[in-house]
Amino acid sequence: MSEALRTDLYQLTMMQAYWKSRHNPEATFDYFVRKIPSGSYLITAGLTFLLDYIENLRFDDDDIEYLRTQDFDKEFLKTLRDFKFTGDILAMPEGSVAFPIEPIIRVTAPIIEAQLVETFLLNKINFSTLIASKASRVVYAAKGRAIAEFGLRRAQGDGHLEATRATYIGGCASTSNVLAGKKLGIPISGTMAHSFVTSFDHEIDSYRAYADAFPKRCFLLIDTYNTIEGAKKAVIVGKELEKRGEKLIGVRLDSGDLCGLSKQVRKILDDGGLEDVKIVASGDLNEWKIDDLIKYGASIDMFGVGTELITGRPTPALDGIYKLSDIIEDGKHVPKMKLSEEIVKTTLPGKKIVWRITENGKFKKDIITLENELVDEGVPLLETVVRKGKIACDRPSLSDIRQNTAVNFSKLPEIFKKLDTAPAYPVEFSRGLTELRADIVEKITREEIRHE
Amino acid sequence: MSEALRTDLYQLTMMQAYWKSRHNPEATFDYFVRKIPSGSYLITAGLTFLLDYIENLRFDDDDIEYLRTQDFDKEFLKTLRDFKFTGDILAMPEGSVAFPIEPIIRVTAPIIEAQLVETFLLNKINFSTLIASKASRVVYAAKGRAIAEFGLRRAQGDGHLEATRATYIGGCASTSNVLAGKKLGIPISGTMAHSFVTSFDHEIDSYRAYADAFPKRCFLLIDTYNTIEGAKKAVIVGKELEKRGEKLIGVRLDSGDLCGLSKQVRKILDDGGLEDVKIVASGDLNEWKIDDLIKYGASIDMFGVGTELITGRPTPALDGIYKLSDIIEDGKHVPKMKLSEEIVKTTLPGKKIVWRITENGKFKKDIITLENELVDEGVPLLETVVRKGKIACDRPSLSDIRQNTAVNFSKLPEIFKKLDTAPAYPVEFSRGLTELRADIVEKITREEIRHE
Repeated sequence: MSEALRTDLYQLTMMQAYWKSRHNPEATFDYFVRKIPSGSYLITAGLTFLLDYIENLRFDDDDIEYLRTQDFDKEFLKTLRDFKFTGDILAMPEGSVAFPIEPIIRVTAPIIEAQLVETFLLNKINFSTLIASKASRVVYAAKGRAIAEFGLRRAQGDGHLEATRATYIGGCASTSNVLAGKKLGIPISGTMAHSFVTSFDHEIDSYRAYADAFPKRCFLLIDTYNTIEGAKKAVIVGKELEKRGEKLIGVRLDSGDLCGLSKQVRKILDDGGLEDVKIVASGDLNEWKIDDLIKYGASIDMFGVGTELITGRPTPALDGIYKLSDIIEDGKHVPKMKLSEEIVKTTLPGKKIVWRITENGKFKKDIITLENELVDEGVPLLETVVRKGKIACDRPSLSDIRQNTAVNFSKLPEIFKKLDTAPAYPVEFSRGLTELRADIVEKITREEIRHE
Repeated sequence: MSEALRTDLYQLTMMQAYWKSRHNPEATFDYFVRKIPSGSYLITAGLTFLLDYIENLRFDDDDIEYLRTQDFDKEFLKTLRDFKFTGDILAMPEGSVAFPIEPIIRVTAPIIEAQLVETFLLNKINFSTLIASKASRVVYAAKGRAIAEFGLRRAQGDGHLEATRATYIGGCASTSNVLAGKKLGIPISGTMAHSFVTSFDHEIDSYRAYADAFPKRCFLLIDTYNTIEGAKKAVIVGKELEKRGEKLIGVRLDSGDLCGLSKQVRKILDDGGLEDVKIVASGDLNEWKIDDLIKYGASIDMFGVGTELITGRPTPALDGIYKLSDIIEDGKHVPKMKLSEEIVKTTLPGKKIVWRITENGKFKKDIITLENELVDEGVPLLETVVRKGKIACDRPSLSDIRQNTAVNFSKLPEIFKKLDTAPAYPVEFSRGLTELRADIVEKITREEIRHE
């Protein structure tokens, strides 16, 4: 299905105005993030959706029929029948480590085409990148313990599948979301809810019923009434399983003082001879709480994380933007930028690329340059993914993307991974870009602000 | 398409355990919200998705094929071929005003069925209710000025359509999301972005091009370089439009000190004889900022709100939960509840309903009772929406739901609408419920905590 109308109305009104004024120059837009919600880095994700969108982009008859009811010019609407994207797109591959201000995606096309794709690109890339980055932080905080994503019930509706995909890219080990298992091949995990326990006459009856149904993968939820008493009953059922030649795999804590309770539960399990039984903790966890739990010696082997991971709480949106940086007029590049009373909302002019310098296998710094500048020892981060409207890159599998993410992340020096006190990673502007920017600021100030 | 696998794995493992232990009693679950993110009330939304889901709920062959790869019992999987939902659902209609702890939806069905639907219900109802409630606050803060929802680019991916629907239920006047216009009939709005301005040689060229393309609905974005200078150019183009017998409709501010700038821009427009031109403001707005702008006398006629509205920021998830409250065993009701070390996580036992008492046309208080209790002068809030698995209610149109919301909201006393200092609305428990709860706590403490 084409998603042409998954856009802001102003893209379509601007398209008509460009068309009406015969102003359809080749334009370049940069997608970049001004501010990272938490920490110093981003894990890029969502590119695959943009590629599918570009490949299928067209206006269906009923799209045009709908627009006809919205006061568009009939002649303009006729041009939409043959609309397709004919431009070039450069992008950092999914699973890249990126930093603020760096162009992550660069779109070059006739401005009518480049304008339309803005909203879809922002909608999908902002969200996937937000969640992959959050997941990376949560996984990092867990210091090697597995993170199971449990967020479907708190996900923002139909965004759940792409969110789960992004948590997996960011390093989560599994999801509770069965549809994500079926459609994306992500490992699924989950055992029982409190309702299962309360539906039986006694807590221990529910444990026995579950152990009977899943003797080979039995996890018991032990906090329905009282965590300590639940742990004691789990020991009883664990021993019953042993008599049958099976093993209790784990217990789950979902409320209360997870740190203190986990230590008490560990002791109860150990005293009962169940040293191998794992303890899973869940309940409004995030990277900070996990970091604290580990710091204070919690006996937790695995974490289930829901709301925070699947929505990015406390910051549920990435402020990624898509800004015009260059126009070709009369065969010549005319660099473009936006000024603003808010300095952070000023943009970088010109067709740009990003270089990364690595030292001893670790990222050292990035440099944003104009397209014609070279950086010795630097590796360019933007790859051509669409050329003249056609997909021009590999489409790695989800597990490859996850693996690439892990490799990239391993090259980020530890100091930039700190949850709260990470310094800004060095991103420099080339001399050419710095000079160009000063020139354009001077020109705009002269022509648009002082003299009109 | 069936969405049977849009669920947490543990629903399916519990279903197998219920099946294996031949434990499939009729069970009642309540959906309710423990804590409201901001303010005192909720606007319920999303029920229509639950009804569609129930109507189409089945396991397709490829669903079962996938589950076969996940170590389920083959005989259990066979039973899924004939699975359907056969129970009853009561619910507050969409657009109701609801409060914490009140059952908003009540599901009664064999536990295997009632368990499965939990995740979908939570995923959809939590999100729509979160956003409709947020929208209601933003609309209320604007004191009659229209709110245009601009959030698609920051929406959590594919959740955008239902989010936009919920903002409309909550009272927003329009959306930038063209697909929401086409699919849901919501009015769409939007004009131009900064890239439109920067793509032309001079700001005023872009204004003239837009005015030429849309002489009857021309809004100009005036903050690309400098808001005051932009306003002056808008006056020039507004007067050019007047000479052609047309009118400039409005200007938009998207950055800077919106309060101060709006007053300066108003003066520039008025001095230029453009008293009718509206001022629209946007840029990271929310209910608090809008309230402040109005309080300090900003000259703003309409607000565009994006990120906060479409994601619920700062609280992107509602903590709505679905808890077992009753089981039928041997023909008798056995009320159920969950205890917790965290008192807020304790639930209410028994099959319950909610009554509302209104005085002089305003809501006075609500009372949660057991099903067999009556409240004189109270109106029951839960309506039967599914009976024996079939839809048993009207399906109001989106505009009717929006209208009902406005009527319901008008009955909420002003004090409960305050953004931050609203007191808790009075929700009482009936005597029967209070006594039942004490009995069950005593029973659980005796049987599950003290004596095992």
